[in-house]
Amino acid sequence: MEFVKKDILSIEELAREEIELILETADSMKEISQRDIKKVPTLRGKTIVHFFHEPSTRTKTSFEIAAKRLSADTVSISASTSSIVKGETLIDTAKNLEAMNPDVIVIRHQASGAPHMIAKKVRSSVVNAGDGMHAHPTQALLDMMTVREKKGTLSGLRVAIIGDIAHSRVARSNIVGFTKMGSTVVVAGPPTMIPTGIESFGVKVTYSIEDAARKADVIIMLRIQKERMGDSLFPSDREYANFFGLTHKAVSKAQKDVLIMHPGPINRGVEIPPEIADGPHSVILDQVENGVAVRMALLYLLIGGSRHASDD
Amino acid sequence: MEFVKKDILSIEELAREEIELILETADSMKEISQRDIKKVPTLRGKTIVHFFHEPSTRTKTSFEIAAKRLSADTVSISASTSSIVKGETLIDTAKNLEAMNPDVIVIRHQASGAPHMIAKKVRSSVVNAGDGMHAHPTQALLDMMTVREKKGTLSGLRVAIIGDIAHSRVARSNIVGFTKMGSTVVVAGPPTMIPTGIESFGVKVTYSIEDAARKADVIIMLRIQKERMGDSLFPSDREYANFFGLTHKAVSKAQKDVLIMHPGPINRGVEIPPEIADGPHSVILDQVENGVAVRMALLYLLIGGSRHASDD
Amino acid sequence: MEFVKKDILSIEELAREEIELILETADSMKEISQRDIKKVPTLRGKTIVHFFHEPSTRTKTSFEIAAKRLSADTVSISASTSSIVKGETLIDTAKNLEAMNPDVIVIRHQASGAPHMIAKKVRSSVVNAGDGMHAHPTQALLDMMTVREKKGTLSGLRVAIIGDIAHSRVARSNIVGFTKMGSTVVVAGPPTMIPTGIESFGVKVTYSIEDAARKADVIIMLRIQKERMGDSLFPSDREYANFFGLTHKAVSKAQKDVLIMHPGPINRGVEIPPEIADGPHSVILDQVENGVAVRMALLYLLIGGSRHASDD
Repeated sequence: MEFVKKDILSIEELAREEIELILETADSMKEISQRDIKKVPTLRGKTIVHFFHEPSTRTKTSFEIAAKRLSADTVSISASTSSIVKGETLIDTAKNLEAMNPDVIVIRHQASGAPHMIAKKVRSSVVNAGDGMHAHPTQALLDMMTVREKKGTLSGLRVAIIGDIAHSRVARSNIVGFTKMGSTVVVAGPPTMIPTGIESFGVKVTYSIEDAARKADVIIMLRIQKERMGDSLFPSDREYANFFGLTHKAVSKAQKDVLIMHPGPINRGVEIPPEIADGPHSVILDQVENGVAVRMALLYLLIGGSRHASDD
Repeated sequence: MEFVKKDILSIEELAREEIELILETADSMKEISQRDIKKVPTLRGKTIVHFFHEPSTRTKTSFEIAAKRLSADTVSISASTSSIVKGETLIDTAKNLEAMNPDVIVIRHQASGAPHMIAKKVRSSVVNAGDGMHAHPTQALLDMMTVREKKGTLSGLRVAIIGDIAHSRVARSNIVGFTKMGSTVVVAGPPTMIPTGIESFGVKVTYSIEDAARKADVIIMLRIQKERMGDSLFPSDREYANFFGLTHKAVSKAQKDVLIMHPGPINRGVEIPPEIADGPHSVILDQVENGVAVRMALLYLLIGGSRHASDD
Repeated sequence: MEFVKKDILSIEELAREEIELILETADSMKEISQRDIKKVPTLRGKTIVHFFHEPSTRTKTSFEIAAKRLSADTVSISASTSSIVKGETLIDTAKNLEAMNPDVIVIRHQASGAPHMIAKKVRSSVVNAGDGMHAHPTQALLDMMTVREKKGTLSGLRVAIIGDIAHSRVARSNIVGFTKMGSTVVVAGPPTMIPTGIESFGVKVTYSIEDAARKADVIIMLRIQKERMGDSLFPSDREYANFFGLTHKAVSKAQKDVLIMHPGPINRGVEIPPEIADGPHSVILDQVENGVAVRMALLYLLIGGSRHASDD
């Protein structure tokens, strides 16, 4: 199968077969990062711009390492150094970047839909590294890679996603992705954090973490945004931890070999207690490792193939 | 012809023949950025330090991409991370950088003359990426490259520069450059923004944008510094746009094939309306693309040749 | 001799023979930076993360240049962009970095002991680039390299260290290093800046800069932290300069070929007058150049050898 997408903007736009191709490619990319010499010349002479409008350590570092292990050249632009502060529009910034002939623009932006808007305007490939409360497709892909690696399949699994479902781009992308790949997704969180009508995505809703965890093969804990603490959604992190922090009791209701996941960075003692984050079910650091592999796979599929084509 | 300059500090210091050599070299560099594999080994093992004391997206990104496409190693230092905050003098910072054996120091600084001061103190080549209200030679070179590419020559052209002439390093470098290459330069702007005595540079002065545009082959709109709005120079951006924003009427007085240019980032609706910025006369994005090519050419001419010499 | 350390955390942990091996390796690395093509493929395919929690120009730039001249891939993370701002613990950040399979994590941190804590938790090599008031081993190594280069040996020399001994990680690492290599170390500073019990390190203490300088082969002036000025330690920088700024009279009491050193950035006219900083005894810029060489040597010894081993 050939990968013909120009951009990676959301899980919605990827067919099941495309997701499978990405995950298979990521498996072979992972092996590169485990070698003594962690570098292949695949994307030599390609230019990748990392355009991050929101602060990010792990996602940006993961993309940069992925690009460098494929021998691409990388340039980084952050919100604070960008012309945005001089009043330029986002489209103008993107068109200007494009004029420098990058092959891929990786963008994180607080505005939902920003990567899509840019993708329509530039010839370069665009990868969405997280936009507002909309989508975080590379996170969903690395989560699916991690589960597939441990369970052998995504089909027929029960995946519980716990936390602020309404405001989480990670939740949204994972719901779409796991459902598409044949998993059953259950979400749980305080009623104020469950969007109305979410059942139409084929998702089961509960307001009890133990209900959600029951017979789960995978439990994905969402990060609680401390900056929302104290507002009307919930009164305090202690209150949140009491009702929706992961507990041993909840884990005990899940499958014996349940995987505990978290997109990071974790708030130890809030959404997940340290002994579970560091415990035998946790695959949180596998997720991080697989993030590099998934991003390598995407860069390769987007721009690595074209070169071979033109070599023919 | 051999290029023997150690530094690129201002257009004033470049002979007409040197400018021609730079522009010809830039033409061949541009082709590299349009290849599938946008990289040549020319500057492998060279170290280029980007030392930016003022925020900048496009200039810094352009220099970094230029260096990487020539296979040089790059290191970036910004004002906020530099020892300047610890009270070190600029010369001490430069001498310290030099001790690490860089081949080129690219510097942007708010103080006019800072790059010259540094160039005198270090053996490394120094490239001025914009100093105060003094000079921005790489911008002028990319502007000349763009015009030459579209018009075939710079000689005998009429070039109008519109805006805050007095405070613009872009204006100053372009006036010197285009005049040196045989163009006639006309400037227009509010009287408070035209420096007294500018006629001595061989420039025509008018206070009407339509007068300046008349029969122009090239119209260069300067960026209005929003941070100066509201002070004594002019009362508001609307007021400015009314008198010195580019209009269809002004464009209609120019040559049929007039080029509309802007150093960016543009303030849409202030100095230039969107339909002209995106219209058929606009070469604004060509300028950005050519910026990478000009900077590749300068790096190559400054330090690429020495290697060949020592290879003999 | 084979270098078997996993980490470089402090001079205390290095044996005399290991220091000698590092300094010899650094001598040969220095030659690379003086070539026309300043790059060797030794660490191709290795990933080095620079994790700087305190602002730093020269140390970070020095490490980055060192890594790139050895062909390693580098990724930088600063405090402001890191997840630390989102409340993640230092160990979690480190474990997450490690999951991306870096070969070396270079860390600077305001908390003494942070690099040691991380080193215990990750398989990657950790290099301490300065932690709190505790240690700055690469600074001590480059200082020792500079003295050894000029004097031929470190044994039997008299080394004076002048300034705020109590709060300086440079002083602490140099005291341990020079003493271990057979030098005699004398420290001088205001009584408030000499830690009690320092004689137990085998150091001589005086409160007079001229006493300390007498017959010195090396005078290391410490940087005065301007941010501590005005507090109880001393009233003003003029007061400090009067008593502990380096003077010609003090230099005249030292050996004829005394070396004047400073870790930088220097406060001209406070701890050192310009004519001495720029004078014939000063090796301040040699220190900077040797900094790159020492860091290349450490990276090579930590991770360059393993590759050869696995090649067998």
